[in-house]
Amino acid sequence: MEQLRLRIHHIVEHNWFQGIIITLILFNAVIVGLETYPGIYAEYRSFFWSADTALLWIFTVEIAMRLFAAKPFSSFFKSSWNWFDFLIVSAGHIFVGAHFVTVLRILRVLRVFRAISVIPSLRRLVDALLMTIPSLGNIMLLMGIIFYIFAVIGTMLFQTVAPEYFGNLQLSLLTLFQVVTLESWASDVMRPIFDELWWSWIYFVLFVLVGTFVIFNLFIGVIVSNVEKSETSEKEAATAIRDEAQTEEIRALRGEIEELKALIKQDRQEK
Amino acid sequence: MEQLRLRIHHIVEHNWFQGIIITLILFNAVIVGLETYPGIYAEYRSFFWSADTALLWIFTVEIAMRLFAAKPFSSFFKSSWNWFDFLIVSAGHIFVGAHFVTVLRILRVLRVFRAISVIPSLRRLVDALLMTIPSLGNIMLLMGIIFYIFAVIGTMLFQTVAPEYFGNLQLSLLTLFQVVTLESWASDVMRPIFDELWWSWIYFVLFVLVGTFVIFNLFIGVIVSNVEKSETSEKEAATAIRDEAQTEEIRALRGEIEELKALIKQDRQEK
Amino acid sequence: MEQLRLRIHHIVEHNWFQGIIITLILFNAVIVGLETYPGIYAEYRSFFWSADTALLWIFTVEIAMRLFAAKPFSSFFKSSWNWFDFLIVSAGHIFVGAHFVTVLRILRVLRVFRAISVIPSLRRLVDALLMTIPSLGNIMLLMGIIFYIFAVIGTMLFQTVAPEYFGNLQLSLLTLFQVVTLESWASDVMRPIFDELWWSWIYFVLFVLVGTFVIFNLFIGVIVSNVEKSETSEKEAATAIRDEAQTEEIRALRGEIEELKALIKQDRQEK
Amino acid sequence: MEQLRLRIHHIVEHNWFQGIIITLILFNAVIVGLETYPGIYAEYRSFFWSADTALLWIFTVEIAMRLFAAKPFSSFFKSSWNWFDFLIVSAGHIFVGAHFVTVLRILRVLRVFRAISVIPSLRRLVDALLMTIPSLGNIMLLMGIIFYIFAVIGTMLFQTVAPEYFGNLQLSLLTLFQVVTLESWASDVMRPIFDELWWSWIYFVLFVLVGTFVIFNLFIGVIVSNVEKSETSEKEAATAIRDEAQTEEIRALRGEIEELKALIKQDRQEK
Repeated sequence: MEQLRLRIHHIVEHNWFQGIIITLILFNAVIVGLETYPGIYAEYRSFFWSADTALLWIFTVEIAMRLFAAKPFSSFFKSSWNWFDFLIVSAGHIFVGAHFVTVLRILRVLRVFRAISVIPSLRRLVDALLMTIPSLGNIMLLMGIIFYIFAVIGTMLFQTVAPEYFGNLQLSLLTLFQVVTLESWASDVMRPIFDELWWSWIYFVLFVLVGTFVIFNLFIGVIVSNVEKSETSEKEAATAIRDEAQTEEIRALRGEIEELKALIKQDRQEK
Repeated sequence: MEQLRLRIHHIVEHNWFQGIIITLILFNAVIVGLETYPGIYAEYRSFFWSADTALLWIFTVEIAMRLFAAKPFSSFFKSSWNWFDFLIVSAGHIFVGAHFVTVLRILRVLRVFRAISVIPSLRRLVDALLMTIPSLGNIMLLMGIIFYIFAVIGTMLFQTVAPEYFGNLQLSLLTLFQVVTLESWASDVMRPIFDELWWSWIYFVLFVLVGTFVIFNLFIGVIVSNVEKSETSEKEAATAIRDEAQTEEIRALRGEIEELKALIKQDRQEK
Repeated sequence: MEQLRLRIHHIVEHNWFQGIIITLILFNAVIVGLETYPGIYAEYRSFFWSADTALLWIFTVEIAMRLFAAKPFSSFFKSSWNWFDFLIVSAGHIFVGAHFVTVLRILRVLRVFRAISVIPSLRRLVDALLMTIPSLGNIMLLMGIIFYIFAVIGTMLFQTVAPEYFGNLQLSLLTLFQVVTLESWASDVMRPIFDELWWSWIYFVLFVLVGTFVIFNLFIGVIVSNVEKSETSEKEAATAIRDEAQTEEIRALRGEIEELKALIKQDRQEK
Repeated sequence: MEQLRLRIHHIVEHNWFQGIIITLILFNAVIVGLETYPGIYAEYRSFFWSADTALLWIFTVEIAMRLFAAKPFSSFFKSSWNWFDFLIVSAGHIFVGAHFVTVLRILRVLRVFRAISVIPSLRRLVDALLMTIPSLGNIMLLMGIIFYIFAVIGTMLFQTVAPEYFGNLQLSLLTLFQVVTLESWASDVMRPIFDELWWSWIYFVLFVLVGTFVIFNLFIGVIVSNVEKSETSEKEAATAIRDEAQTEEIRALRGEIEELKALIKQDRQEK
């Protein structure tokens, strides 16, 4: 049993194994791409169906092997990437008989994301990207409060004038997201309202200023913390090592001098 | 009296007290959100009215308690966040009988901003954001001069050609703000004018270049000062401490050697 | 004569003098602002005319005084800001009788820019902004080559399909400037051409990628050089001073030890 | 033969030679620019034809000389800039009799890019820009995966609702590129779809957030690596030199003290 586990572990960790999986994910990507062309899909429908079933089962076997190869089974689920692989594949089995064809097809497309979990350098990159998010928690909370307050006020003020953009709270939130990306905020959103309510420019200019200022600071925060981190880890280390060496040198010196003093003191006592 | 003050101070500083206030602010946020739906508002009008009155009085009591808990009353007003809380709540009482229903409703929405003053981490974040503004004073003054001059020239040149965008000085300033966010600056603002006055592109291209250049430098200024500040405070400190330790070490060495010299000189005198 | 020069120099450098000039520039700004309102201008035409003449002469006297106060007259013209002041004011006299009313009015507006040359902190800021330009010379030349080549190719390819955007070389350059600001590059410029020539997306996507990449690198260059400069000048200085102090300390140590050695050698010889 | 090679090498490296080539490239740029004006082109057709042939042959001779001047012929092809020059010019000969007039004309325009390969400072700049690309490999692969998955899903969901934007996979990819530049993503692309499928905002908001977040991190990566590189190379060097000097000083001290100890030990043995 343990021997089998080790053999499977050996296979799973092999470069060939990873290469085959990446190729299959690529093949999966091509399949879902071709399926979007109605003409091709109609003609090769049965081929797509069998290719898809085959891929699902191959991925199932792959994950079963990786699960079996993990020393305690539970260690497999410590990595959130393994969870991701597991859920994507098992969801394929669960929804297999479902009537929501679109859900099933989207699941097949999402399997392409497995390329990230399989290629280590991509996995590290995404991990690094996701790790910047928690440090942005406060500024996102602040952004949320600002969005909510502006959305409520915007709905109150412009509900009747521009129902398309500020008809209700959800629409206002969507419109504010559009405004904060600076997309047609003036030409489409503000100017028609501005023609009816001359003071409406205050609302929009204020939101553009506050919104971009906060987002800009969010960006700065990330840049600064990144610059810092990279500098602390790399350059600091170099300086620390050199300083450490110097301090060591000075300490050695001190030792020598103490020896010297001891010698001289001994001299005096002997006299 | 003093004992009562201390007891209230104890309550006010308690985590439970803060938790309740945050919950109430959240409840206030939900209320003002639901009020924007005309159907819901019409049906539960009396509930909204009483919930709102209750919240106003609870917040009044809360601020009265925090005011009472402050050692000299005046110390309460040293924090601008306390001023903000005080004004938001007292404005709710002042305008209570007013006919401007919209003003009253906006005040209720603005109470959600109290979430920032109550949650310490958000308060620090906003303080940090606001502290970057004074250092931008000069560049904002410069931006103001550029905006004003371009607005006056724009009004002079395009008043008759594009009254919608450059009809008067206020409109020109608003249009220039739109142009500096690069929103439809060419498709909506410049091209119609360009069709009539071929040389108008100079005005717009110049303004886009100057405007984005100045704003970009404003951003750089903030980034650089932030990077610097964080580095000076953190990394510098580390280096300084290590250097300090070394210097200390060297000074100790010197002391030892001076002792040594004294010993030897003593030797000679004894001989 | 020399005494008169010194007295004028004294007046010119006085805070009051600067304060008055700033006030007058502000007054000039208000005047040119009010003049853009046709109603106000028609009613107070004579007032505007006399206020303007008065301001022109006051500024002329001011510059004459500053010119006279400069030790060798030529030193006045060493500062480009003085050149700016001199040209703005003298142009007001030269064009006074001209028929180009608009040119004259623009000159009056440009006098507001004198606020920058009069307020020292703004002057320094603008000097700093302008100083970043030369270091961008190469990247601007590169940008120019890219713009020119894309404009020539764009004119060749889309001249007949989209005469509004690519009718001739000048129009193409203007369109490319619009595209590089990402303003309606797809919705207005590319999509209509794309409907006729399916391969046109290559041209636009390539230009957007290359253009934004180069501009982005231009920005990075400025940021990095700024961060560097500020760090080198400030932090480096601090470290250098501390290191210098340490080295000094170590040198002192060495001196002491040499004295010690001399003492001991003397001992031996005496024996 | 070798002497001839050296003489040609001498000519090729001369400032005059480079100056003439730059002038000719400028002349080439003016020619292709003028050719875009149909009126001018029709009138001076024969002049353009002969100027173009002359330029092609001059550039051919220039590259032949530079090829001949290279010590082993193969060393010429080690520089990718020389390859670029060689291909641009030889393509001019290959397609000379072709019927694709547009291809030929574009080749003539691309010769203006030779300005970059001829001016050393521009060549270095472009080399530096291109060198940042490999380090972005992973994030571009990630961007590619995200684009592909969103394009497949977008085609599946919106194929029938918005055939103009999501009609097939290629169109979806182009539309997503437009969305990631934030150009009319809401006003033109999302809102018409949103009117039919209310849940479509999830797709767009998610893509805008993910897309801009990844692009933003790509930018940060470049900034940070640039700041780092420049700092490591410049400032680090300075600190290292100073630290090196200090360590040297301390080592000298140690040497002195060891001599001292030896002296004292000698003293004791002599006694």
